[in-house]
Amino acid sequence: MKVLFVYVGLIAGLLGIISALYIYNWIGRQPTGTEKMVEIWKSIREGASAYMKRQLKTIIVFSFIMAVIAGISVYIGYDVKLLPQHPEMRSEVISESILIAVSVVLGSASSVTAAFLSMDASTKANVRTTEAARRGTWEALRTAVLGGSVLGFLVPSMSVFMLSLLYLVYSFFVGGSNPLSIRIVLDSLAGFAFGASLSALFAQVGGGIYTKAADMGADLVGKVEAGIPEDDPRNPAVIADQVGDNVGDCAGRGADIFESITAELLGSMIVGWAVYFILINAGTSQDTAIKFMLLPLLIGAVKIISTIPGVVTAASQKKFNDPIEPMRNGVIVTAVVALIGFAIVYILFFRQYWGYLLSESLIGIISAVIIVLATNYYTGRESKAVVEIAQVSQSSSALTILKGLTIGMRATFVPIIVISSALLIAFMIGMHMPLPSTSNSLAIAGIPIEKFLYGIFGTALATLGMLSLSGIIMTLDGAGPISDNAGGIAEMSGLEEEVRNRLDPLDVLGNVTKALTKGFAMGSASLAALLLFQAFVQDYVARDPSVIQLVSGIAQINMQNFLVIMQQFINRLVLIRPDIMLSFLIGAMIPYLFSSFALDAVTRAAWMMVEEVRRQFKERPGILEWKEKPDYYRAVDISTQYAIRNMISPALTVILPPLVIGILFGGAAVGALVVGATASAVTLAILMMWGGAAWDNAKKYIEAGHFGGKKSPAHAAAVVGDTVGDPLKDTAGPSLHIVIKLLNTISLVFIPIYMIWLLSSVLP
Amino acid sequence: MKVLFVYVGLIAGLLGIISALYIYNWIGRQPTGTEKMVEIWKSIREGASAYMKRQLKTIIVFSFIMAVIAGISVYIGYDVKLLPQHPEMRSEVISESILIAVSVVLGSASSVTAAFLSMDASTKANVRTTEAARRGTWEALRTAVLGGSVLGFLVPSMSVFMLSLLYLVYSFFVGGSNPLSIRIVLDSLAGFAFGASLSALFAQVGGGIYTKAADMGADLVGKVEAGIPEDDPRNPAVIADQVGDNVGDCAGRGADIFESITAELLGSMIVGWAVYFILINAGTSQDTAIKFMLLPLLIGAVKIISTIPGVVTAASQKKFNDPIEPMRNGVIVTAVVALIGFAIVYILFFRQYWGYLLSESLIGIISAVIIVLATNYYTGRESKAVVEIAQVSQSSSALTILKGLTIGMRATFVPIIVISSALLIAFMIGMHMPLPSTSNSLAIAGIPIEKFLYGIFGTALATLGMLSLSGIIMTLDGAGPISDNAGGIAEMSGLEEEVRNRLDPLDVLGNVTKALTKGFAMGSASLAALLLFQAFVQDYVARDPSVIQLVSGIAQINMQNFLVIMQQFINRLVLIRPDIMLSFLIGAMIPYLFSSFALDAVTRAAWMMVEEVRRQFKERPGILEWKEKPDYYRAVDISTQYAIRNMISPALTVILPPLVIGILFGGAAVGALVVGATASAVTLAILMMWGGAAWDNAKKYIEAGHFGGKKSPAHAAAVVGDTVGDPLKDTAGPSLHIVIKLLNTISLVFIPIYMIWLLSSVLP
Repeated sequence: MKVLFVYVGLIAGLLGIISALYIYNWIGRQPTGTEKMVEIWKSIREGASAYMKRQLKTIIVFSFIMAVIAGISVYIGYDVKLLPQHPEMRSEVISESILIAVSVVLGSASSVTAAFLSMDASTKANVRTTEAARRGTWEALRTAVLGGSVLGFLVPSMSVFMLSLLYLVYSFFVGGSNPLSIRIVLDSLAGFAFGASLSALFAQVGGGIYTKAADMGADLVGKVEAGIPEDDPRNPAVIADQVGDNVGDCAGRGADIFESITAELLGSMIVGWAVYFILINAGTSQDTAIKFMLLPLLIGAVKIISTIPGVVTAASQKKFNDPIEPMRNGVIVTAVVALIGFAIVYILFFRQYWGYLLSESLIGIISAVIIVLATNYYTGRESKAVVEIAQVSQSSSALTILKGLTIGMRATFVPIIVISSALLIAFMIGMHMPLPSTSNSLAIAGIPIEKFLYGIFGTALATLGMLSLSGIIMTLDGAGPISDNAGGIAEMSGLEEEVRNRLDPLDVLGNVTKALTKGFAMGSASLAALLLFQAFVQDYVARDPSVIQLVSGIAQINMQNFLVIMQQFINRLVLIRPDIMLSFLIGAMIPYLFSSFALDAVTRAAWMMVEEVRRQFKERPGILEWKEKPDYYRAVDISTQYAIRNMISPALTVILPPLVIGILFGGAAVGALVVGATASAVTLAILMMWGGAAWDNAKKYIEAGHFGGKKSPAHAAAVVGDTVGDPLKDTAGPSLHIVIKLLNTISLVFIPIYMIWLLSSVLP
Repeated sequence: MKVLFVYVGLIAGLLGIISALYIYNWIGRQPTGTEKMVEIWKSIREGASAYMKRQLKTIIVFSFIMAVIAGISVYIGYDVKLLPQHPEMRSEVISESILIAVSVVLGSASSVTAAFLSMDASTKANVRTTEAARRGTWEALRTAVLGGSVLGFLVPSMSVFMLSLLYLVYSFFVGGSNPLSIRIVLDSLAGFAFGASLSALFAQVGGGIYTKAADMGADLVGKVEAGIPEDDPRNPAVIADQVGDNVGDCAGRGADIFESITAELLGSMIVGWAVYFILINAGTSQDTAIKFMLLPLLIGAVKIISTIPGVVTAASQKKFNDPIEPMRNGVIVTAVVALIGFAIVYILFFRQYWGYLLSESLIGIISAVIIVLATNYYTGRESKAVVEIAQVSQSSSALTILKGLTIGMRATFVPIIVISSALLIAFMIGMHMPLPSTSNSLAIAGIPIEKFLYGIFGTALATLGMLSLSGIIMTLDGAGPISDNAGGIAEMSGLEEEVRNRLDPLDVLGNVTKALTKGFAMGSASLAALLLFQAFVQDYVARDPSVIQLVSGIAQINMQNFLVIMQQFINRLVLIRPDIMLSFLIGAMIPYLFSSFALDAVTRAAWMMVEEVRRQFKERPGILEWKEKPDYYRAVDISTQYAIRNMISPALTVILPPLVIGILFGGAAVGALVVGATASAVTLAILMMWGGAAWDNAKKYIEAGHFGGKKSPAHAAAVVGDTVGDPLKDTAGPSLHIVIKLLNTISLVFIPIYMIWLLSSVLP
């Protein structure tokens, strides 16, 4: 049974990767259009590759250092706390330390590979989408969607595949199949998730700085001061802007999804481990019990497979009034197929519980839908909120900014209610699952301890349910920057009006899906972060030296001790302890500090970009009269330098606090830090992303001819709003998803060193 | 002994009130200047009074409704949960319900009285400061400082006086002096704090909307579009702007401080009650034990008295290079006198523990100093951050906004670290106080339960320590709007250049102290909120039906049960329970939702104001040519209407969630809600207030001649930044202090109804 679930994960993963490669190849075989198009396209591709190479170098060096630090910390932590009590475990400790270090590097490498391939597919598809638009709208849409589907297939599949593969390899390496050895495998896999989060943060922050510096620089001088249109080849920052779309939106998003899926799968497996462990102790067979732990891999497989009909639907519908229709149909098809897939899996393998499990998955899917609808309500193109921003823009850009902030703040309401209710309901369903029970009377937080752990497993399934749409959603998301670029290429290579008109609805579609998927990404990231927090708590307890005992010479986890220690640990996690309060407040500060660094980098880079574009226009007046070619390279260079140089400090605001807090105050404090950061990040990210999207659409609303249209004072004010919103919604906001997951995965990996807990004598 | 401490509070309170009235009288006897000055001054005073009257009406109606709801809820809660078990307590329950309702009305009335008198003193002092400036800078400074000191004396004194008085009256009314009856007195006093918070929120939100709508309307059209200077009498919104300074900054602040001090004193008394209760049970005499509970009143008395030499110092130093000097000296004198006062009190009455107690108070004072210095570092007039904002303003207002947000976000660092460390250190000192101990082996959150309660008492003292500077700080704060108004009156009545030049440094001073005191207010509000949260937890447990037992016919609190129930309650307050997580996330959302409503009201009102001013300039072109008088009344009316109408919805975002959550999920969930809101509010408020202050000073930096000076593009961009920052720093930001305290006091008052806990059967 164990073998079956993991192999299904492996095979589905392979299938997804093959689909992705097949599509990748198909795209490569499409025509690339005129010479001029190819020339522009090549500059974009080269700029993107050059940047990615420098970025990869930085990421790899940093990941390698972190891998070594992680391995050593794990060893030291165990050496101080575990080995004095259990000297027989030295070999396990050494192998765990090594496996963790290796996993960090592998996670990081997989993540950057995912990022690189996603970007590569996207920079391949852009010019071909332009070319396809010369044939028709549907052809263009199909190319963009299939280009996006490389991201949608490849990334989740790589995650499921790698986790399944590493699970098999590590199991072989660690040996044995008792709960303790399985735990060691999971602990080592945590390194993989950590490596993935780490790279993702770098990729998203670096890419986010790059793209927004270029975008703002191009807009502020080009559009506002010089009055030339968007994507005009006279603008020295225009190539940097196009490169930015790829390295920011595609590569960043690829790494982001990879780490999301990996972290969620692993988190659910860790949470599932506790269920498995209790079932084993309640007399259930190993084969039956372990199904609960390995279920996430099966769910991952269902997700990959259900994405296929969705993508086919979206790419093959030839007739539509609005390109959003085939997209929506694709999502619906995927959701239905996924639900059917879940039902089959649950009925086949969890007959007694299938109703519970299916309702939990359903909760996740429904939550995703509500959040996406809410996003549209607050930031949709003609929503009340957006029209109000446009309206006050007639007075002053200050009111534009204030109104956007207002809307971003108000938009926190629905997602917070939905996410927290989903957690609560899924927990209550899980709690009441009629799973076998050991006879112990312990309670944590007032709830019988086993019901508590089953409840948490329920929330894990809801989280995975929401995630089941990620493949198709990310396909649509990936289609956005491709269309955006395709439009840019058409503009720059001076293609006929008709072609550009065919690409326009795609561009609009890109903006719509981008905003909607932001809602989805935020929702799933918060659920994932809270899931990882639960996993952290359970994992911390499982690694406590006193839960381990020798049974006929073999180290085992003692269930009674596990539950008692869990009770003790959780009792410490109360908001009223001053060290918990401290960690929690510091956690709440992290997203602010992080965003500050990220936005500051964008602001500085944009300022340099503005100066550079102004300088070129001033020193070489021929540029604006089409007589001289601007120096694109300088702009590309500014974005690259600022992005690479400024990736590090935001990342450190995330990496350092859990280490310092954990070593000083122990694991409970780290838990509080993570929860504080999650709550703060969710609200702040919504403010930044929804506010940003609303500003963006308010500008577009005015451009559509309302309140004076283009070149009116209202438009100028709206442009300021949009420019402020850009780095909020594309640099800081989306990075915050990764921040909270990185905080969680870093916590998981460094658990052994937290056990040192330096201040435990002063504050027990 | 009990009588002594309360009487000291009464007398010191009276003394403070008398000082305030004396100064108030002195100000009234100062000359008011030319006829023109008096005319303008009267319009301001009338506008302010007219607004205040309408505001008071709304507040009183609302408070009355809330009082009735509170009284009934308390009764229902007890009737469902307590009375079935303890029918003998019906008379106590009835008197508590009535006393709470009465207290809410009294609290609200006291708060509005404080607000009204502060504003009255301030609108009396403004014209007299202008007149004094005709004699010299020192004379003007003295008038402004003494005008502010009415606020500084009156408000804390009223709080200490009323609490002492009500304590005596309620004790007499409730009868008995065992821990239970004292508890009932404290519970009833919670209604007073709640009433005060409620009015303060209304006053601050209403005043904040009023002042910023007028200010923004005046600036956006007058300064930016028409190009007339600030406070120019041709601007139709100029009187509304001056009125706003008074109703927003003075009245709002008066109510704010009143509720702060009241809530902090009461919170510390509730926390002190637990120490008293344990000491009683450990065999300490009633007289000795109750000192710990009544200590806050004594500290309040020390604070009032130590403010006197500080104000005298600040008002009497005739020679200075910069008006900040006498201010700083005033603060230093107060701090030193307060510390000496504390030492005397502690040595006299708590000989064994004086070292512990004094260090706790010192922690509070030091934290206040660090936070004020940090405020200056991030937002000071020539600080690096401010210069950077000014610099990027040369590019675009979008970068101005982004840079300000960046700085506001980064500024969260120091205050969060200081506040949380202060709590932690004070807790650890308290924990190690060698107080007598009962022999029980219970632990909460891993810490022996009595040490835990002593630790919390330590944090209460640190909070009170920080607060000991509030009298003098608020004096300086009150001097700000008086100087601001004085400058405006001088401008509008066309006084000679020399007088205006004398007032300029005072105006600058006003801005500096305003920014610094914002830091102080934020720091003390967060500490107060966390203190009230601790008080809430203890109070919740003390009201549990099962802690009450009959001893020879008299209801008493059983200590063992109290500790056991406390342990159970706190164990439920863990971040991992889904209902706690839900409440906590909803709590984190409240400040966003609240700010959204408040800012939206300002944005709408400002938009109306802009339209109105534009209309007047357009329809009556004579205004700008000094030929016609603008219609000031219309602008005053717009501000008034919007402020009154839009006070309610932000307040409801604060009042409803704790009621709904508490009734559904019980008290622990309310605790989590409050903590979530506190963490979120602290960070968001710092972002808004520091960011706003930095934008303000960046604009002034440019106006001082840097980066092109006035009328440069950089200046235009900086004005946008300042305009965005204004409602953030003066409406939403300062209201958030009150929000978190109102959440806490509402939680305290409604405890009995939370005990109904509807969902306890589904989620125990």
